[in-house]
Amino acid sequence: MTTDESPARKLATTVLAGDVRAAARLMRDLDDRRPSALDTLKQLFPHTGKAYLVGVTGNPGAGKSTVVDALIAHYRAAGEKVGVVCVDPTSPFSGGAILGDRIRMQRHALDPGVFIRSLATRGHLGGLSRSTFDVAHVLDAMGFERILIETVGVGQDEVDVMKAAHTTVVVTVPGLGDDIQAIKSGLLEVADVLVVNKSDREGADRTERDLMHMLDLRAHGERKEVEIVRTIATKGTAEGSGIAELATAVEAHRARIWQGPAAADRALARAQAHLGELVRALLADRASRAMEARGGLGEIARGIAERRTDPWTIAEQLVGAL
Amino acid sequence: MTTDESPARKLATTVLAGDVRAAARLMRDLDDRRPSALDTLKQLFPHTGKAYLVGVTGNPGAGKSTVVDALIAHYRAAGEKVGVVCVDPTSPFSGGAILGDRIRMQRHALDPGVFIRSLATRGHLGGLSRSTFDVAHVLDAMGFERILIETVGVGQDEVDVMKAAHTTVVVTVPGLGDDIQAIKSGLLEVADVLVVNKSDREGADRTERDLMHMLDLRAHGERKEVEIVRTIATKGTAEGSGIAELATAVEAHRARIWQGPAAADRALARAQAHLGELVRALLADRASRAMEARGGLGEIARGIAERRTDPWTIAEQLVGAL
Repeated sequence: MTTDESPARKLATTVLAGDVRAAARLMRDLDDRRPSALDTLKQLFPHTGKAYLVGVTGNPGAGKSTVVDALIAHYRAAGEKVGVVCVDPTSPFSGGAILGDRIRMQRHALDPGVFIRSLATRGHLGGLSRSTFDVAHVLDAMGFERILIETVGVGQDEVDVMKAAHTTVVVTVPGLGDDIQAIKSGLLEVADVLVVNKSDREGADRTERDLMHMLDLRAHGERKEVEIVRTIATKGTAEGSGIAELATAVEAHRARIWQGPAAADRALARAQAHLGELVRALLADRASRAMEARGGLGEIARGIAERRTDPWTIAEQLVGAL
Repeated sequence: MTTDESPARKLATTVLAGDVRAAARLMRDLDDRRPSALDTLKQLFPHTGKAYLVGVTGNPGAGKSTVVDALIAHYRAAGEKVGVVCVDPTSPFSGGAILGDRIRMQRHALDPGVFIRSLATRGHLGGLSRSTFDVAHVLDAMGFERILIETVGVGQDEVDVMKAAHTTVVVTVPGLGDDIQAIKSGLLEVADVLVVNKSDREGADRTERDLMHMLDLRAHGERKEVEIVRTIATKGTAEGSGIAELATAVEAHRARIWQGPAAADRALARAQAHLGELVRALLADRASRAMEARGGLGEIARGIAERRTDPWTIAEQLVGAL
């Protein structure tokens, strides 16, 4: 860390003072991987560690954005400052229709107690998870006590991104087909709280029973405690049916996991996971540079395409030379 | 490459002779990252480059497995040997309900002209994409001329896995909600051929119009040529309505892209992308080992958790020391 009055330090001071435009600029610079932005992040780090991160994920069409919207209203009504990170790993190139929901949520942006930041994958391996951690740290340092991380896709990205959360909420709805049930079985593993949203729909009882059954199936001896909450989230209100119960379930998980005797160990594991992400990301950068530096990469690729050599041998040589 | 009669070379000879059990064992060993398996893969590499890889992806519930099943029957009827790689990035921990479809498809496994291999993520960054390339190379070397790669999830994994395909088919169905349309906008970018499956359902016209519209929206000046095909895929038959048309659309894309004047450049880019994947994977392994080797990682993590140091500085030090 630099201790002089460097630009990084000045920007950190501005962000800590609550300047949202400076914060937005910093997040953009972090996304662009500017070294100066990283220096600022290092300056902010000692001021982090106070926020509680809640991840919200689940099946497409389950109403995640609506649940997040209702949770924002709930936490705001309780006087908490709320940061939101919307992660969209499904649109590597374009924003797409997702913006609709996001724009509706943006009305909260008029509230200085709410800060919303959208992230889309930039094509980097593990990049989304890193960006999520970065943004969450900035929001944490700024005093946002509650940070909601919403992800849209379903897959390994989801699981990686959710590593940043203290409590992960998985949202589903009644009446999804078999194929979608299957997807849920992957998400189920990361769930600390399960939500059956749109629970006024037919089949809510069955969905809840199915979820219970899946949780039982998964338990090999020890069964992770996962609460199931029914909601009928309504955009823009804290009174969406079940939202208060959902918030209570999140707090119950928090008390159990992050305030109990094992909390310190978990905090260590979390720090270690974050460090692992960063190391992998730095190595990926280095590999990209190493390959760019070898202007002869086109020639190497030609040798592979023509089967004169094989890619595994070349990869070993490139990495060995680092 | 080793040239003596090493075990790796012997196994390669056995696999090239068409021994499916040896091939299955090799794929398992590749998944377990045994160095000997990698040596065998290097031996097989000169025998690859003849197969045409078709990726099939799309919305959950769109009937991807049924389309793949019908394509297998179609290509078999045309006398081609067909390899299938089923990728499931959504279930990082458990297989889940997905197996149902897969088991139905396995009836083709009685046909020596069909080889089906399922892959699930093993939690490695970029691991799925690497495994897909590995398996495809083994199948290619064995003389499977047509390789179908089916992925189940939606997200960055999908996009990465599809890099292995020559032609990517994205399957959708009429009547999906807004949220699912959104996901499609990400997949749309990788589509070479679009399929409206279950096209006897209400709304097929509208879905096709919407897709056309999205393709137009995406085009900034130059519009990628993407054919839209309607299918009503029926399991186990080559006569599923529209399947022959789908195969024709795939061949048209093949002729346009992989047999035209730019084909050599594309083959180079493809070899380069594969090499990039391999380099990143090797670096990730190296990072894991470096962190494991530093037994003091717990202590470092403690310093981070207690905010005595920051993870970015530590990550830079760890990578710098490699």
